Amino acid sequence: MTDPASLPVLTILAPGLLGASLGAAAKAAGLVGRVQVWARRAETIRELECCNWCDEASMDMAQVVKDADLIWVCAPVNVVARLVGQLAAWVKPTAVVTDVGSTKGRLVQQCESALGGAAAFVGSHPMAGSQKSGLSHADAQLYADRPCFVTPTDCSDPAAVETIRHFWEAMGMRVYEVAPDEHDRIVASISHAPHLVAASLAATLAEAGAGQWTHFVGTGLRDTTRIAAGSVEMWMDILLHNREQIVPVLAKVIDGLEHLKTHLEHGQFNAVEQVLRDGKRFRESLE
Amino acid sequence: MTDPASLPVLTILAPGLLGASLGAAAKAAGLVGRVQVWARRAETIRELECCNWCDEASMDMAQVVKDADLIWVCAPVNVVARLVGQLAAWVKPTAVVTDVGSTKGRLVQQCESALGGAAAFVGSHPMAGSQKSGLSHADAQLYADRPCFVTPTDCSDPAAVETIRHFWEAMGMRVYEVAPDEHDRIVASISHAPHLVAASLAATLAEAGAGQWTHFVGTGLRDTTRIAAGSVEMWMDILLHNREQIVPVLAKVIDGLEHLKTHLEHGQFNAVEQVLRDGKRFRESLE
Repeated sequence: MTDPASLPVLTILAPGLLGASLGAAAKAAGLVGRVQVWARRAETIRELECCNWCDEASMDMAQVVKDADLIWVCAPVNVVARLVGQLAAWVKPTAVVTDVGSTKGRLVQQCESALGGAAAFVGSHPMAGSQKSGLSHADAQLYADRPCFVTPTDCSDPAAVETIRHFWEAMGMRVYEVAPDEHDRIVASISHAPHLVAASLAATLAEAGAGQWTHFVGTGLRDTTRIAAGSVEMWMDILLHNREQIVPVLAKVIDGLEHLKTHLEHGQFNAVEQVLRDGKRFRESLE
Repeated sequence: MTDPASLPVLTILAPGLLGASLGAAAKAAGLVGRVQVWARRAETIRELECCNWCDEASMDMAQVVKDADLIWVCAPVNVVARLVGQLAAWVKPTAVVTDVGSTKGRLVQQCESALGGAAAFVGSHPMAGSQKSGLSHADAQLYADRPCFVTPTDCSDPAAVETIRHFWEAMGMRVYEVAPDEHDRIVASISHAPHLVAASLAATLAEAGAGQWTHFVGTGLRDTTRIAAGSVEMWMDILLHNREQIVPVLAKVIDGLEHLKTHLEHGQFNAVEQVLRDGKRFRESLE
């Protein structure tokens, strides 16, 4: 067994489901010697003291940051850069800082600027999560066999990028290196716009009175709208950061639906059938 | 044990997944003495001869219809009325005929007319199914704890309605009696329009080049578009029968998305947040 003292110290800031699962997974995989956690509230600290993967929990950021080799900022997208700015005061110059945010372009820029070269920053976006949120649902398997974006820029230290990539891969993730803006363009299409479609469909059905028919609802609509149950706060952050990329995708989705409606109204069934065939082919390509 | 000879004879016409599961479930629950099946193709007959729930399989409709007490026409929506017209020549006057079609207004009218009083007809729509189709995926538990519409009209024999209701309930279904047109209005909202949204979203993403990003796709988009993988033929039938009810729902969905896009473009985040909150509330009401 490797001497824990020779392994890196991992510090997690503002853990929710993602941060706690990260701590549990890193400890389980023997990737780190110590896991230290900073949280804002005393209640969270008490909860952390009962987690067997957590070696130290503190509301004093300096205390858990100063000897950290790896720092994972797990806060919501709109808070990450502020915390990075704070930790810059105490971070070791050899440390590597990353995050788990669902947007990257603006966020990475803000973080690089907030850190001001005090240590290395590399953006991450592990595509993992759950309807459940919060520390208590921590799952050491949350990241296994899921995709993860790592988003270096021209300013990134190649060794730091390698460190972050290796860490996610050791948790079983499939890592893809993509520029921050390209990341945002991709997730606008395959995640953010679809989220809005699901949410808007659910809201429209509710407004149209479908609430009286919930006992008839089958697995189809349940699946189609499942993500609409996600955290409103988290999604508002994402939309705020990435709306420039999301709006054009949403415009295409509306255009597609408008054409489909027109075809259906006018009895142009060949065109309707083509949409169903194209949609089926795409969905089957995801299996 | 009840003497099988005293139990009703069930005849299933044109079984796929729904018909075969019905036969298996009825036999398992001891609801019927015999299960007889008509199919169009010799290959299907050979497959049926290996199913332990099937007592007789024939391509001769007269042979399996003439002594049937209950007749379930399990064909696609656009074929049901034609088969009902055919079976009218041999059916016992005391028999009760039903179907499993996903649309009811036009279909029930066609079936009542095609049967011409030769026996009783009552429309059914069990909200059960699977991505898998075909005889070989028959599942005696397919109907358990799922909703089922029974759609009587002014012409329906109350005793026949009771027979059909009892039969579905004995399979574990939650039965709701609803007029055929009301059924179509409900399912346009909670099933047909959502299906088109999922299919159109998938088709639009494919056209926008998202096919190159499938390795990044997470559970969110997989769930949102899952139903887009359904049978194109089955859905074209449904759309053909129910487009008058579907188009206005689709118009509302487009309207909702258009507003959401405008709010997002103009930075009206309170309005965006309201949509997310309304969508979340509706989705949570389905749990």
